[in-house]
Amino acid sequence: MDPVPLLQALIRCPSVTPADAGALSVLEAALQPLGFACTRLRFGPEGEEVENLFARRGTGSPHLCFAGHTDVVPPGDLASWTADPFAAEIRDGLVMGRGATDMKGGIAAWIAAIASLPRDLPGSLSLLITGDEEGPSVDGTVKVLSWMAENGQIPDVCVVGEPTSRAVLGDTIKIGRRGSLNAAITLHGVQGHAAYPQRADNPVHRLVRVLHRLTAQPLDSGSEWFEPSTLQVTSVDVGNPATNVIPGTARAKLNIRFNDLHSSTSLIALLRAALDAEEARYELDTVCSGESFLTSPGPFVDALVAATRAEAGVTPKLDTGGGTSDARFITRYCPVAELGAVGATMHKADESTPVEELRALARLYAGVIRRLTAG
Amino acid sequence: MDPVPLLQALIRCPSVTPADAGALSVLEAALQPLGFACTRLRFGPEGEEVENLFARRGTGSPHLCFAGHTDVVPPGDLASWTADPFAAEIRDGLVMGRGATDMKGGIAAWIAAIASLPRDLPGSLSLLITGDEEGPSVDGTVKVLSWMAENGQIPDVCVVGEPTSRAVLGDTIKIGRRGSLNAAITLHGVQGHAAYPQRADNPVHRLVRVLHRLTAQPLDSGSEWFEPSTLQVTSVDVGNPATNVIPGTARAKLNIRFNDLHSSTSLIALLRAALDAEEARYELDTVCSGESFLTSPGPFVDALVAATRAEAGVTPKLDTGGGTSDARFITRYCPVAELGAVGATMHKADESTPVEELRALARLYAGVIRRLTAG
Repeated sequence: MDPVPLLQALIRCPSVTPADAGALSVLEAALQPLGFACTRLRFGPEGEEVENLFARRGTGSPHLCFAGHTDVVPPGDLASWTADPFAAEIRDGLVMGRGATDMKGGIAAWIAAIASLPRDLPGSLSLLITGDEEGPSVDGTVKVLSWMAENGQIPDVCVVGEPTSRAVLGDTIKIGRRGSLNAAITLHGVQGHAAYPQRADNPVHRLVRVLHRLTAQPLDSGSEWFEPSTLQVTSVDVGNPATNVIPGTARAKLNIRFNDLHSSTSLIALLRAALDAEEARYELDTVCSGESFLTSPGPFVDALVAATRAEAGVTPKLDTGGGTSDARFITRYCPVAELGAVGATMHKADESTPVEELRALARLYAGVIRRLTAG
Repeated sequence: MDPVPLLQALIRCPSVTPADAGALSVLEAALQPLGFACTRLRFGPEGEEVENLFARRGTGSPHLCFAGHTDVVPPGDLASWTADPFAAEIRDGLVMGRGATDMKGGIAAWIAAIASLPRDLPGSLSLLITGDEEGPSVDGTVKVLSWMAENGQIPDVCVVGEPTSRAVLGDTIKIGRRGSLNAAITLHGVQGHAAYPQRADNPVHRLVRVLHRLTAQPLDSGSEWFEPSTLQVTSVDVGNPATNVIPGTARAKLNIRFNDLHSSTSLIALLRAALDAEEARYELDTVCSGESFLTSPGPFVDALVAATRAEAGVTPKLDTGGGTSDARFITRYCPVAELGAVGATMHKADESTPVEELRALARLYAGVIRRLTAG
């Protein structure tokens, strides 16, 4: 089975989050002939449900799951495209279109890999496909995983088909991701006349000290598998138009991308310590969109590396960089790693994937499936 | 001559900047019988002229000028007043009304002092009265001084009748004022994704470092006649709503009140040095609303001190604190000092001056005039 026509059929569904636009039906039509039982799972407010798909073949162990998403980011300015983003035109050996790499291509390659393998593989296979990965990620993978747990469908290991490769197919496997914490600081002082600062308490000066404390030194110098954590002050806002007035309140926003040396709890404590040093009144609001996680190298990761060496001819780098993915949810249930296409054109105009790379990805995935179902 | 009825007549002119509301005509009517030649000077755009008055008696030396303003700040919330701010009611020994202390009272007391003295004083007297001190101060004292210079009317010394006293009449003479510099900083970096700070250049972090450099240490520890200079960051603004984006630009506003150890030029150099340390692109916009100045103690200040001791029975403190006044313009032409009423209620609701204090101020001013015209 060639993954190219399946990818083209998927691209032709303009499934910009949260629209499904028929994408999951294309998958069902491909999976059912391969022996998969398909369950459509709809979550979210009535009339705005997100479509998700869980497909399973067999019940044996080991249970290998493939996770991915059919939703795509908007095409953006159409004038920047030289192809129709939803026509799936093949040009100069490239399949053109939104989602070609992120990540309809990965799904098509995985299904083609299954089709290329005997039906009587040991263990069992499943696919967790969501329509809400590029959006709020509320009614997608998180809720499908809950449903899977309730229904005894939690896999032994999971491969996420995000486009992890950088320059060459297979050069990068993601075995973890940094966590992300957003913080909003509101610091209160005492308003007053700029000519008499001794009668006021300038919260901007206190905030500058707090932010200097937080940014003067790096949070860490990295760990075995992670780059150093980063803290970025993304905004500071006072909004005081009067040049002769010391304001009463100052605000800042921070984003922290953190490795396995930290947790949201330890970082919030660190922020509070920097604030408490001022002995001023403040509010700290935080939102953690994902803790850091690591799938420690071992038999699962070794199998992915071995498959990549054998099928793609490269030794992959084990990486934990970049933004978040739905792997942050899957890690709560089972070991998870991410391996997929070269992501160079993801989210960009003229997103595309080479036909030959897509076929090579299907061969790589077949090697992965063989090794991970071997038990 | 009792200063009280003259003050009442002035308060009854609701001369909120830039309105004159008849205030200068009240002064002309008081000054002409005392032998003063009155010149009305109107400056500013047609239809929005500011009214000013220059009055002179005699041409002899020494020429003593009194400077003041008839314009007042708005009464503000009338519900906070227990008296009509423009009725000049006398209640419990207080003249109530906007401008009672700042500074129609000072003008009334000075004119009453002149009236109490013989006509054949040595030297000569003048009054520089503006209607634009509480406002932009563009079409007031600055332009009257230019006119005086062009017309050979620059005095030998000048007393400004601002309400300098703190607790007791005469307890404070201002012999200088701090300068004031406003600065607006725009610092440029490179916008990027918060997850990949190594590909961006966060201008907020640079701005935090700049502001920390500028605020971590005091500018100085004061000088012989001045309190320490102060630097206040009055606003920092980025306006970035996206938590995952490193912004491209960050802005800050500063106000510096500086003593005679600095000038606007030296302070701008200091700001540039703090900015240049970042090796980033920036814009620095500055506005100096007045350099610091000092009328060094000597015969002029000694005469003011002697008069205050003799007439008010207190030894005044020579002070340079507080905000700016029109003395910052007069100092360019001649020695200037400020001596006037107790300023406790200035700019507040129920502004008032005690009848007896006003009369005591007239006696104090008479002593000042006698000493400063004695040559």
